[in-house]
Amino acid sequence: MSEVHAVRRTRLRDRGAAAGSAASLVSRPANVRYLAGGAPPGAVLLVGPEEDVLLSPFPLTGDPAHGRTDERLRVAVLSAGGGDAVVAAADFAAKAGADSLAVEEHHLTVARHRAMASVAPRLRLADLGTAVEQQRVVKDEEEIACLRIAAEIADQALGELLESILVGRTERHLALELERRLVDHGADGPAFATSVATGPHSGRGGHRPTDRRVEEGDFLSVCLGANYRGYRCEIGRTFVIGTTPADWQIELYDLVFAAQRAGREALVPGAACRDVDRAARQVLEAAGHGEALAPLTGHGVGLEIQEDPQIAPGAMGKLDACVPVTVEPGVHLPGRGGVRIDDTLVVRQEADGGPELLTITTKELLAL
Amino acid sequence: MSEVHAVRRTRLRDRGAAAGSAASLVSRPANVRYLAGGAPPGAVLLVGPEEDVLLSPFPLTGDPAHGRTDERLRVAVLSAGGGDAVVAAADFAAKAGADSLAVEEHHLTVARHRAMASVAPRLRLADLGTAVEQQRVVKDEEEIACLRIAAEIADQALGELLESILVGRTERHLALELERRLVDHGADGPAFATSVATGPHSGRGGHRPTDRRVEEGDFLSVCLGANYRGYRCEIGRTFVIGTTPADWQIELYDLVFAAQRAGREALVPGAACRDVDRAARQVLEAAGHGEALAPLTGHGVGLEIQEDPQIAPGAMGKLDACVPVTVEPGVHLPGRGGVRIDDTLVVRQEADGGPELLTITTKELLAL
Repeated sequence: MSEVHAVRRTRLRDRGAAAGSAASLVSRPANVRYLAGGAPPGAVLLVGPEEDVLLSPFPLTGDPAHGRTDERLRVAVLSAGGGDAVVAAADFAAKAGADSLAVEEHHLTVARHRAMASVAPRLRLADLGTAVEQQRVVKDEEEIACLRIAAEIADQALGELLESILVGRTERHLALELERRLVDHGADGPAFATSVATGPHSGRGGHRPTDRRVEEGDFLSVCLGANYRGYRCEIGRTFVIGTTPADWQIELYDLVFAAQRAGREALVPGAACRDVDRAARQVLEAAGHGEALAPLTGHGVGLEIQEDPQIAPGAMGKLDACVPVTVEPGVHLPGRGGVRIDDTLVVRQEADGGPELLTITTKELLAL
Repeated sequence: MSEVHAVRRTRLRDRGAAAGSAASLVSRPANVRYLAGGAPPGAVLLVGPEEDVLLSPFPLTGDPAHGRTDERLRVAVLSAGGGDAVVAAADFAAKAGADSLAVEEHHLTVARHRAMASVAPRLRLADLGTAVEQQRVVKDEEEIACLRIAAEIADQALGELLESILVGRTERHLALELERRLVDHGADGPAFATSVATGPHSGRGGHRPTDRRVEEGDFLSVCLGANYRGYRCEIGRTFVIGTTPADWQIELYDLVFAAQRAGREALVPGAACRDVDRAARQVLEAAGHGEALAPLTGHGVGLEIQEDPQIAPGAMGKLDACVPVTVEPGVHLPGRGGVRIDDTLVVRQEADGGPELLTITTKELLAL
């Protein structure tokens, strides 16, 4: 594993050198973890021409999420009360003779940036931009293996829930139950706050569970994901509670299913992200649901549950092979409810069998 | 309720006017919630001389955490894809004729700050600093009532856990069980990630639950809290598992208990925060545990689980009445475990009965 992180840092170092900054300071936690193999709270990573230093306010523990480092990485623990790690890093870089330092301006606050400038006035602070985020877009097979396990765990948790009695239970309790099952099956935790939406709430993206209870005839939308070794997947399904779905429910379900399938089928290396969005969105627009649609049809997943690329109308860029993304269109009818279907897939060459579906729970309309 | 938020904004407006900025932009979510009564994700609050505007990327829902606003507050929903709310706010302030705008430099990123300057080049961006955080330190009785309920919920969840069989269960499962019980008793969720630490892990602040199982003879440290209407409390207790505690366990427990009591008794209006820290810390130092102590003995709680004031050796400032704080000293002996005792209390005048203990679970050493 540790080799992997050293190679990632070398790529960043080469890019920094090309952009004119000898040293880079990585402060966004997911980026620190990507490059160092672990990120204790508040730790930052200085990638320099000579050596790489993880500056941490805390000693590293045996916890693999914190302590995994490699031979080429030095760990410097800040003294107690030693203050902000980015300020210590600026001081360190200046003393090591760096004349410029590229920082993550989209993550650093104005106040911390000022404090860096004040402790190292001769150090020119440049912008690293989203260089690390861009490096994170295409995953290696080890990362994809973690996502695959995360998806399996989510499938298992969801599958068990479907076998239990649902009517009468609240959204909040179902969400907690799902999160417990994720951990039971080996997740480090939920990938994000589990969403359970019943009846009129169903189909709403990011719905926060309430005390509403599941009733006969409801749509039930569930969206959950597991965090496995830092990698986060996402699955969303919609079910009908009770005997037979109503006609409007079947119709709406078939529509969202068709949109989601169109999105999935558009996932090929080289496809423009906006075209994938368009493939799914136009199915729903043609049926008159254009106005209320969410701004995104999907997004990348990895060390964060929402990362690049965006699958959206205004998205620039194209898909590459080995990029895991969600496809998650939904329709919500105010007062009635709706449908949301969400998969995590990995973009693959057609010769390799096309998009790899990680979340394999059935997408038939189940009546529970 | 809504009057309260309008009054809070008036205080901020008066302060801004005194500091030379007619308009202030509040972006930190807990600050937005404090001043507007609700904070949809990504929403920011513009407090201007003429009117106050909550700029939100999403329409407000019926959810009280999102939707509660008052008559003097206008809500402006950004158009889909309308971008960052702080940038929209800068544009809005400039068009409304403001010449300067105070922003939260400790929260805004460098990139967002630049984007504001670029959309409104004639608007002078000043620093609001932690003005809103300072306003939040002293709580009103309605806020304290929420904290009191949050503490009751945490006490109930903890009490129920103590009645169940513990040996053989993992830290992770006990933590999830506690979180489920918090919600059962009416919490909106846990106030922070519940910590359960067994055996050699016990007594470590902020320990993240692992798969280690509770064993006979273990110390068991638990730290949890409820979020009730946005207000967050904290309680931590340490127990012994099995029949009779060992001598070293009784000794260590009595020591930490004495330190925690000394800290609690030092909570009087007008006391320097560092003196409260000192009262607890010197008990542990005198027993030879000085080096491994956590940097903080306690901290304020409210809309965030860690807010001002800090109870720490280097803390400036004094306590006021109606400031809720934690007192949470602990000792961890590497390889053996330790003890941590944590209460949430409200500073009160002695005439009013002295510090009000919100978390009332017993602090006797229970053998479970």
